[in-house]
Amino acid sequence: MTETSTTAPDAAVADLTLEEKASLTSGASFWYTKAIDRVGVPSIMVTDGPHGLRKQAEGGDHLGLGASVPATCFPPAVGLGSSWDTELVERVGEALGVETSIENVAVLLGPGINIKRSPLCGRNFEYLSEDPIVSGVIGAALVKGIQSKGVGTSLKHFAANNQENDRMRSSSDVDARPLHEIYLRGFQRVVEDAQPWTVMCSYNRINGVYASEDPWLLTSVLRDEWGFEGLVVSDWGAVNDRVTGLAAGMDLEMPSSNGVTDAQIVAAVQDGSLDESVVDVAAGRVLDLVRKARTGAGAVEGPLDVDAHHALAREAAGRSIVLLQNRGAVLPLSPESSIAVVGVFAEKPRYQGAGSSMINPTRLDSALDEIRAAASGEVAYAAGFSVAVDPSADETTALREEAVAAASAADVAVVFLGLPARLESEGYDREDIDLPAAQLELLDAVLEVNPNTVVVLSNGSVVALPFADRVPAILEGWLLGQAGGGATADVLFGAVNPSAKLTETIPLRLEDTPSFLDFPGEHSHTRYGEGLFVGYRWYDARRMDVAFPFGHGLSYTTFAYGDAAAAVRPDGDIEVSVTVTNSGDRAGREVVQVYTSLPGGTIQRPQRELKAFTSVGLEAGESREVVLTVRRKDLAYWDTRIDGWLVEGGDYVVDVAASSRDIRSSVTVAVEADAFVLPLSRTSSIGEVMAHPVVGAMVQAAISQMMGGMEGVEAIMPEGVDASKMMESFPIGRAGMFAGADSGGAINSEMIDGLIAMANAPQQ
Amino acid sequence: MTETSTTAPDAAVADLTLEEKASLTSGASFWYTKAIDRVGVPSIMVTDGPHGLRKQAEGGDHLGLGASVPATCFPPAVGLGSSWDTELVERVGEALGVETSIENVAVLLGPGINIKRSPLCGRNFEYLSEDPIVSGVIGAALVKGIQSKGVGTSLKHFAANNQENDRMRSSSDVDARPLHEIYLRGFQRVVEDAQPWTVMCSYNRINGVYASEDPWLLTSVLRDEWGFEGLVVSDWGAVNDRVTGLAAGMDLEMPSSNGVTDAQIVAAVQDGSLDESVVDVAAGRVLDLVRKARTGAGAVEGPLDVDAHHALAREAAGRSIVLLQNRGAVLPLSPESSIAVVGVFAEKPRYQGAGSSMINPTRLDSALDEIRAAASGEVAYAAGFSVAVDPSADETTALREEAVAAASAADVAVVFLGLPARLESEGYDREDIDLPAAQLELLDAVLEVNPNTVVVLSNGSVVALPFADRVPAILEGWLLGQAGGGATADVLFGAVNPSAKLTETIPLRLEDTPSFLDFPGEHSHTRYGEGLFVGYRWYDARRMDVAFPFGHGLSYTTFAYGDAAAAVRPDGDIEVSVTVTNSGDRAGREVVQVYTSLPGGTIQRPQRELKAFTSVGLEAGESREVVLTVRRKDLAYWDTRIDGWLVEGGDYVVDVAASSRDIRSSVTVAVEADAFVLPLSRTSSIGEVMAHPVVGAMVQAAISQMMGGMEGVEAIMPEGVDASKMMESFPIGRAGMFAGADSGGAINSEMIDGLIAMANAPQQ
Repeated sequence: MTETSTTAPDAAVADLTLEEKASLTSGASFWYTKAIDRVGVPSIMVTDGPHGLRKQAEGGDHLGLGASVPATCFPPAVGLGSSWDTELVERVGEALGVETSIENVAVLLGPGINIKRSPLCGRNFEYLSEDPIVSGVIGAALVKGIQSKGVGTSLKHFAANNQENDRMRSSSDVDARPLHEIYLRGFQRVVEDAQPWTVMCSYNRINGVYASEDPWLLTSVLRDEWGFEGLVVSDWGAVNDRVTGLAAGMDLEMPSSNGVTDAQIVAAVQDGSLDESVVDVAAGRVLDLVRKARTGAGAVEGPLDVDAHHALAREAAGRSIVLLQNRGAVLPLSPESSIAVVGVFAEKPRYQGAGSSMINPTRLDSALDEIRAAASGEVAYAAGFSVAVDPSADETTALREEAVAAASAADVAVVFLGLPARLESEGYDREDIDLPAAQLELLDAVLEVNPNTVVVLSNGSVVALPFADRVPAILEGWLLGQAGGGATADVLFGAVNPSAKLTETIPLRLEDTPSFLDFPGEHSHTRYGEGLFVGYRWYDARRMDVAFPFGHGLSYTTFAYGDAAAAVRPDGDIEVSVTVTNSGDRAGREVVQVYTSLPGGTIQRPQRELKAFTSVGLEAGESREVVLTVRRKDLAYWDTRIDGWLVEGGDYVVDVAASSRDIRSSVTVAVEADAFVLPLSRTSSIGEVMAHPVVGAMVQAAISQMMGGMEGVEAIMPEGVDASKMMESFPIGRAGMFAGADSGGAINSEMIDGLIAMANAPQQ
Repeated sequence: MTETSTTAPDAAVADLTLEEKASLTSGASFWYTKAIDRVGVPSIMVTDGPHGLRKQAEGGDHLGLGASVPATCFPPAVGLGSSWDTELVERVGEALGVETSIENVAVLLGPGINIKRSPLCGRNFEYLSEDPIVSGVIGAALVKGIQSKGVGTSLKHFAANNQENDRMRSSSDVDARPLHEIYLRGFQRVVEDAQPWTVMCSYNRINGVYASEDPWLLTSVLRDEWGFEGLVVSDWGAVNDRVTGLAAGMDLEMPSSNGVTDAQIVAAVQDGSLDESVVDVAAGRVLDLVRKARTGAGAVEGPLDVDAHHALAREAAGRSIVLLQNRGAVLPLSPESSIAVVGVFAEKPRYQGAGSSMINPTRLDSALDEIRAAASGEVAYAAGFSVAVDPSADETTALREEAVAAASAADVAVVFLGLPARLESEGYDREDIDLPAAQLELLDAVLEVNPNTVVVLSNGSVVALPFADRVPAILEGWLLGQAGGGATADVLFGAVNPSAKLTETIPLRLEDTPSFLDFPGEHSHTRYGEGLFVGYRWYDARRMDVAFPFGHGLSYTTFAYGDAAAAVRPDGDIEVSVTVTNSGDRAGREVVQVYTSLPGGTIQRPQRELKAFTSVGLEAGESREVVLTVRRKDLAYWDTRIDGWLVEGGDYVVDVAASSRDIRSSVTVAVEADAFVLPLSRTSSIGEVMAHPVVGAMVQAAISQMMGGMEGVEAIMPEGVDASKMMESFPIGRAGMFAGADSGGAINSEMIDGLIAMANAPQQ
C-alpha cells in the first residue's frame, strides 16, 4: 500500500481499460483509493475527522478502527458551531488543512452538517445545528478553510441522516418541503458557496431509496440543481447495489470491496445493463480528485506547530462556551475567591464524542489544572460522582459527601456535570436527555450548602436542565476539544468574555421535542412527522416554553440594538443593517441574528426563520453598524405543485434579534413574488378558476348567475354563511354536477376544456 | 321520477344490455337510482341524514338543497355518541329506520364515523369520536338499529376524510399504521359487525389516490379483508374518473351524470379497456340493493308517531349531555331557586349543524321554556349576546348589562354559551376553537356578580374553556337535536342524572392539538404527521395537560370500582370483569372503559388505547359485575413489513377506567403472540440474524470469533460500550466489509446467501 503520492495522474479516462476504470471507482483498502501503476495513477489517502485528523497509524488493522497519529483535537462541531463566527471557523479549517497536508492526506472526511432533528441522535456532537442556515454557513466556512490548504473535504452525511438507530437501512420518510427547506438547504449552501471536493452519501434511505443509489439525490439535486462539480464517495459500507449506485451518481465506493463490486460493474457493461459512459464519468471524477490532491497533500512541511494549534484550539473552545444564565453576576469569578471544583469532568475532561471522529490529541488540558493556574485563592477539588457504568451506592455517597464538604467551605462551587462518554457515540442513539441521577443529586446537595454555585456542562448533545431555576449561573461547555480545560478557565475568570449562542433549542422535556413520537421509528422507517417544524420552528409555532431558546447566549457585557433598516438590492437580496452598541463595561462579541416571516402569506411557514447572522466584536461603549444579507433564494419555499422553489411576494417582516425569542428591532420590506401562474386543469377548483388572471372574471360572472338559481340553499346553510364557499372547492371538471339532470347539461366537458385551454394559452 | 317502489326487480344482470347495466350504475337524479322499465327494475330513493331524515319535498330543486319533509331531529352524532350506550343508540336507529320506511326511502345516508382528527373539522358534529373503537361500536349500533327496519344505511365517508378544506381533492397522506389502526379500524368494525347495505366513498384522496377510484380501499380492504357484501356509492360528486372508479369497486355514482359517464363505461367496454364483468358486478350490486329495498321502504305505515319519537329524542339528548364539572354540587338545581337564564341559545337553540345533514324538525323545544316548566322559583331571561355576524358595540354592551342585572338578582345563573351556527358546517372548517369574545366577556361579567353560575355549552365540535377554573359547573350540551331543550332542563334539575362522557379530548389550546401544524394542509395534500397519536393518544404520550380528558364525564352520584379480573378465552378474546357500585344516593349510569397497553413491547404504541366499554345503570347503592370483551384482533398492530395485522405477545396491562385519565383498577393478562418469524434477506441486520431461531446461534458464534479480531476498537469506542452494538445494525448482505481486504474474503456472497436460504427453509 502506497502513501498518497503527489505524482501527477497523467492518465485520462480514455487511456484506461474498462477493468481499470471500474477498479478506480472503489477503494484499494480502508483509507486509500486504487493506484493504476501502468498509467501512473497514484493512490491517495482519505481519513476520518473532521475536528481533527484521524489518520490511522501505519500497520493499523484492516477495519480502520485502530490508533491514529496524534493531531490537534479542535472543538467538535457542537462547540465550534456555537461561535456562529465564520472567520473563526475558517481559521480552524485552515489549521485542519495544514495538519491534513502535513500528513500527506488528500481529503479530510467532513464536515458533517446534518440537521439535529432530535436531541437523541447519537451523532449530534458531530453536527452543527437544528437550523439549515447555521449548518450551511458554518459548514461552508469550514470547507473553505480546509480547502484553502489544497486538501479536500467530504461534505457529509448526504442526506437526511438524522439518527444512528438502524442507520444502514432506515428510510427517512420526509415530505418534499421539509426535505428541501430543512434537510437539504444546508448542503445546498455549502455546495454552492464552497464546492467541497467530495460529498459523502449517507447510509440511510430517503423515502425508501438508498442515498447511495438515488439518482434524484446524487444527480438531479446535487449536480443539476446545485452545480456540484466534485466526486460522490460512499460512507464506509453504504453501498447496497454497486451498479445501481454508480448509475445514480455514486462515484467512489469505500472501503475496498476486494474487487467484487468492480467485477459487477464490468459485467454490467458487458451485458449491456450499464452504459460504459457511466463508468467513464465516475472514473474521470476519481482522476480529477487524484489530480487535485497533488496541490496540497504533503505540500506543507512538518512537523506540526503543536503549540500554535493548541492555542487556536483554546481560542475556539472559548468561543464555543455558551453562558446560559448568570443571575446576580456570579460570573466571572474573582481569582481571589476560594473555589470548590466539583465533578470528575473537571479533572478528566469529556472533550469529544465516540466513533469515527475520535481524535488522538496532541495534548489534553484539564479544567482543574487551568483553574488552579488562573486562581490566586484556594482551589479544592472533589470528583463528586463516578462515571463508571454501575458504581456502588457506597461509592456514590462517599463521593457526594466529599464534594458537599468541599463546596460548603468555599466561596463558590463550580460543578462540572455532563454525560458519560458511553452515552454519546456514532452507531447508536440516546434514549433520554437526562443527566445521570447521581449528578443531579450531587448538585442538589451542593446547592444546599452553597447556593453560590456555577454549573459547567460537558455534553455533546442537549440535556434537560431541571435545576435551571435553582442555579444562578450555567455554562454550556458542550465538547470543547483538547484545549477546553483552559478555555473553561478563561471564561470562568473572564479572560474570555463568552459570546457563543445556542445553535439548538434546549427543551424542558424530551416529550416536548418535535420528533418525540417519531424517533427513531420502527421497522426501518422513520416518518419525519413534524415536517418543517424542526427545532425552534416547532416550539414557536406551538407556543411552547423551552429551557433556553435557539440563538440564546449571554455575555459579561450587554448589547443595545438600534433600529434596523432593510432594503431590497438590485440583485433581489435584502440588505439588513442595524447599529449594535456594547452598552456594558467590558469588551465582548455579539451574535446578531436576522429572522424573517411573512404575515398573511398563503404558504404555511414557521413563525420565524433564521436567514442571516454575524458575529461582531465591540469594545466597551463601542457602536458599530453591522450589515447582513438575506438572500432572496432563502425566502423561497419548495412548491410541491411545480416541484421547485418559489418566492412568495408580500411584506416580509425582518426581525433583528439577540436570540429567536429576543427580537430587538423589526422592519418590513416588500418583496416581489416570483412570476408564476398555476396552470388550470380539470382538477382546478372553481375558486382557483375564479381567481385566474385570464378567465377568472368571466367565470365569476357565470357562477353568480348559476348561484342565483340555487333557491332553497338556505335550507341547509345557516345565516351568515356564503353558500358559494362550498362550491368554490369543487373541481371545475366536475362542475357539470351543478347543472344537474334538469338543465340539459348546461355545463359540459367541451366547455370546461375550452376554458382551460384559454387560461393556459401563452400570454401575449 | 317515480317514488321508491316495492316492486321486485325481477331482472338479473344477464337480462340486461350493456347500456342498461351501465345506466344502473349511476343515479337517475339527485336522490333516485335508475329504473329499467323494460325488465321491471324500479327506481329507489336514498336520502341524506342521518340523525333524522332529510327527504327533499316533492318539486324540490335539482341540487338537492331545498326544504325537506319534517322528520324527528335526534341528537347529531357528537351528542348521541357521548352516551357510549349501544342499546340507546340502537333504539334511536330503529326510530330512524321507521321514519325512513314511512317515507318510502330505501337508504338513509349515514352514519358518518370518521375520526375527529382535529377539533377544527367543520363536520365533526356529524362524527362520533377521536377513537376508532367508539366510532366503530357506536356506528355499528346505529346501522343495526336502522337496518332492523328493512331499510339501508350508507357508512360514510370512506375513508380518511377528516377535514372539509379542499375536500374534493385533498389527499390525506397517512402512513400505513395510523391508516389501518386509527382511520380504518372503525369502518372495519361496522362492516364486520353490522354489514351496512352500502358504504359511501369519500371525496378526498388517500395517499394520492381518489377514494372513489382506489381498488386497494374499495376492494382489497373493504371486500377482501373485511368481507363487505353490499354496494359502494360515491359521495355526491366524488367521481373523478368513472371508468377507473368502477374498476376499483365504486359501484354506483351519485347523483346523475346525465348519462355522460354511463356512455364512458359502454365505450370502455367496447374498446376493450374495461372488462364487461366489472359492469356486471356493479350492476348486480345495484340490483341486489333494489331487491333489498323491497323489504322495508314503505313497509311501515304512516303517519309518524311524532310524540313518541320526540320523547325518544329527549331521552337520547339527556344521555348526550356531559357534566364536565360540578364543584360544590351546584347541580342539580333546586326547582325553588330563582334562576337567571342567560344566553340566546336558551331561547333559540342550536341543535344541529349545517349542510347535508340538516333536518327539518317536527318540533323544537327551547331550554328556556322547559326550565320555566320545571322550575317553581322565578326564572328571568336575558339574551346576553347576539349571534349576528357583526353586532354593534352598543348592542353588545346593552345585552351584557341586561344579563348582568338578571344574574345579580338570581340565586343561580345558567349561562348558555356556544358557537354561532355559521361556524359549524359541512363544506369548510373552523379556524380556531374559541367561543366568541363577546360571550366570554359576558360570562366574566356574570361571574363577577354571581359566582353561583352554571355554563351550558352548545357546540358541535370542541371549544376551548378558558373559564373552566372560574365556573363551578359546566354542562357540555353539544348539539342535542329537537328535544335538547327539555333534556337540558331534565339534567339541570336532576330529572335525568347525567351519564355521558367525552368521546374526544377537550384540549387547553388549539396549539396543543396533535394535527395543529398539519391542518388543513396545503396544495391539496394533508400530511397526517401525528401518525398513530390522535386525540388522547397524543396528550398521553407527550404527557400534556388537557382541559378535560377523553372518556371524562361526571354524574350526580358516584361510582366505586372493585378489582378487575381478566382472562383469555378459548377464542383468544380477553374477558374483563369488574364490579361497579353506585356509591352515591341516587340512581345513575356509569360508562366503564377498558384500555390496554403492553409495557416493554417492541412495537411503538400509545400509552393506553381504548378497547372496550359499556354503560351500566345502577340504583343508589347497587353493585353489579360488568363483563367486557377485548377482542384479540383489537390488540393487533399493522405490521408494515408484512402488510398485515400481528398480535404482539406479552403481558398486557388492562386498565379498567372511568376516563382515560382516571384508571380505577389494573390487571395483567398474558397474550400469546401470533406465530411469525420474519424471513431473512440480505438486508436483514446482523442483529436480526443473530436473533433468528434457526441460524442465530451459529451466527452469534461466528461473530464472537470475528469481534475477537477487532483489536484496536477501543480507540474509537469509549469505556462501557459494547462495540458489537454498532455492528449489529449492519445488513448481513454487507458483512463482507468486515472481512476486509486482508482477509481474502472470509465472508463471501455465497456464504451469506446460503445462510439466508437455511434460515428461510420450511421448518419440519
